[in-house]
Amino acid sequence: MDDLSRIDAALTRLLPTRAAPATLAEAMRYAVLSGGKRVRPRLVHAAGAIADARPATLDHAGAAVEFIHASSLVHDDLPAMDDDHLRRGKPTVHARFGEAIAILTGDALQSAAFATLAAAPAEAAVVRHWVRLLADAAGAAGMAGGQTLDIESEAKPSTETELEARHRGKTGALIRASVAIGATAGNLSEAEVSALDAYGAAVGLGFQIQDDVLNATGKANLGKPAGSDQRRGLPTYASVLGVAGAREAAHRQLRQALDALTIFGSRADALAALARGMIERER
Amino acid sequence: MDDLSRIDAALTRLLPTRAAPATLAEAMRYAVLSGGKRVRPRLVHAAGAIADARPATLDHAGAAVEFIHASSLVHDDLPAMDDDHLRRGKPTVHARFGEAIAILTGDALQSAAFATLAAAPAEAAVVRHWVRLLADAAGAAGMAGGQTLDIESEAKPSTETELEARHRGKTGALIRASVAIGATAGNLSEAEVSALDAYGAAVGLGFQIQDDVLNATGKANLGKPAGSDQRRGLPTYASVLGVAGAREAAHRQLRQALDALTIFGSRADALAALARGMIERER
Repeated sequence: MDDLSRIDAALTRLLPTRAAPATLAEAMRYAVLSGGKRVRPRLVHAAGAIADARPATLDHAGAAVEFIHASSLVHDDLPAMDDDHLRRGKPTVHARFGEAIAILTGDALQSAAFATLAAAPAEAAVVRHWVRLLADAAGAAGMAGGQTLDIESEAKPSTETELEARHRGKTGALIRASVAIGATAGNLSEAEVSALDAYGAAVGLGFQIQDDVLNATGKANLGKPAGSDQRRGLPTYASVLGVAGAREAAHRQLRQALDALTIFGSRADALAALARGMIERER
Repeated sequence: MDDLSRIDAALTRLLPTRAAPATLAEAMRYAVLSGGKRVRPRLVHAAGAIADARPATLDHAGAAVEFIHASSLVHDDLPAMDDDHLRRGKPTVHARFGEAIAILTGDALQSAAFATLAAAPAEAAVVRHWVRLLADAAGAAGMAGGQTLDIESEAKPSTETELEARHRGKTGALIRASVAIGATAGNLSEAEVSALDAYGAAVGLGFQIQDDVLNATGKANLGKPAGSDQRRGLPTYASVLGVAGAREAAHRQLRQALDALTIFGSRADALAALARGMIERER
């Protein structure tokens, strides 16, 4: 079974929908199982493999980060937020199930993430550390905070520093947490965990900068119409630094990410390939 | 310091708003610190006292359940849900900060709950157990599920069995989890934890039945206009069993709750008083 099949099987198995009302269970499955690149669980597995973690443990950790990701997409798409009706070519959760169910679906997926961590076959101390990492990444200093800055910066000029804070919160925090969760699922030295954290921080920022580039150049296949950031008047790396400057900024993050991996030698090949795929992608 | 002052101090101290954007931090404080009876943290403290748990540990546990409660209120008030503009006589979070910020505030408060559990001065195995209890109470089989049943049952006749499932999810699950979290914060036998769980389940259901009674009799001071359930066509214990029948159903739960406490003797006086206060209240 390749990584992606394994990840999708875990998502299907670990979605806590059995005791849920039918509509909510269906909306949760729809939100999680409608495709996606599974970048975050792949990072969990690749970082976890370096740490010699048990694959069954990483299944739980990977599913948890993906549930948080799906939760944030469902809420971001809502009319009061980005008001998107299509994602990956299919109706968004609120377009299909109504706004009220979409709000509850996002809420229930966030809960599902923490339930999944708590049920992971891992030591309690590790689970506790993961809960902290994931809650911080999802919360006020992470994704919810980044999304708030997004809303507030609409139609206002931004500096690169402001953009970085917004991107690190909105997208970077969960990607970084995914790597950190994988890294702490097994046995690594503090220096190694720290190196992986530097990798995760750089990849997370680089990924979002490349998102800006693709959105500006109309090549985006990001689940939203190309150019939608400009139409909303939302400042991006591309609008602030120009497309060429934004590409250079993304590559700077890629180089930082790859540099952080050098201490692992060829053991980090999968993480290096993931970083390249995430930041050099053209769609 | 009495219980309520201690609880409010913990909520203020543990709200993770320092690294948050100013608007989001303000909205989170507004949602949590605008009053409320703090029923759930009081249950945590009272159950925890029987278990001889450290008060500092209970501060974290109590704040976590209140953050989940506040999170659900913010989302329940949204236009796509109950569309309430006032709560406890003040504008709701979306009325004051806008819908987008209200969605993010609810999300960030849920994350804050789990971050607070993870940071509690308690053994990792206890924290892990709490995360499971709280995530299950908040999620698809708990509050989000109950709220889904609420939405789906609008203007449809309900049986008492359906009502019970809805109430146990929407309100009962978090009240029950609050008691269970307090009960497992210290040292109790399995039988004692189990007795407290029976107490929590009965109190949770009885509390919501009494809510129906007060809503129907117009005495409600529940943060929503009296009679609002009827106007929405939402079946309640009062509409299905009549007000007298609903009162009797609430008292049946109170008796079950008090019966469950007998093994503790006078050590459970605070829990008994809380149950009476929650189910015999007339506003």
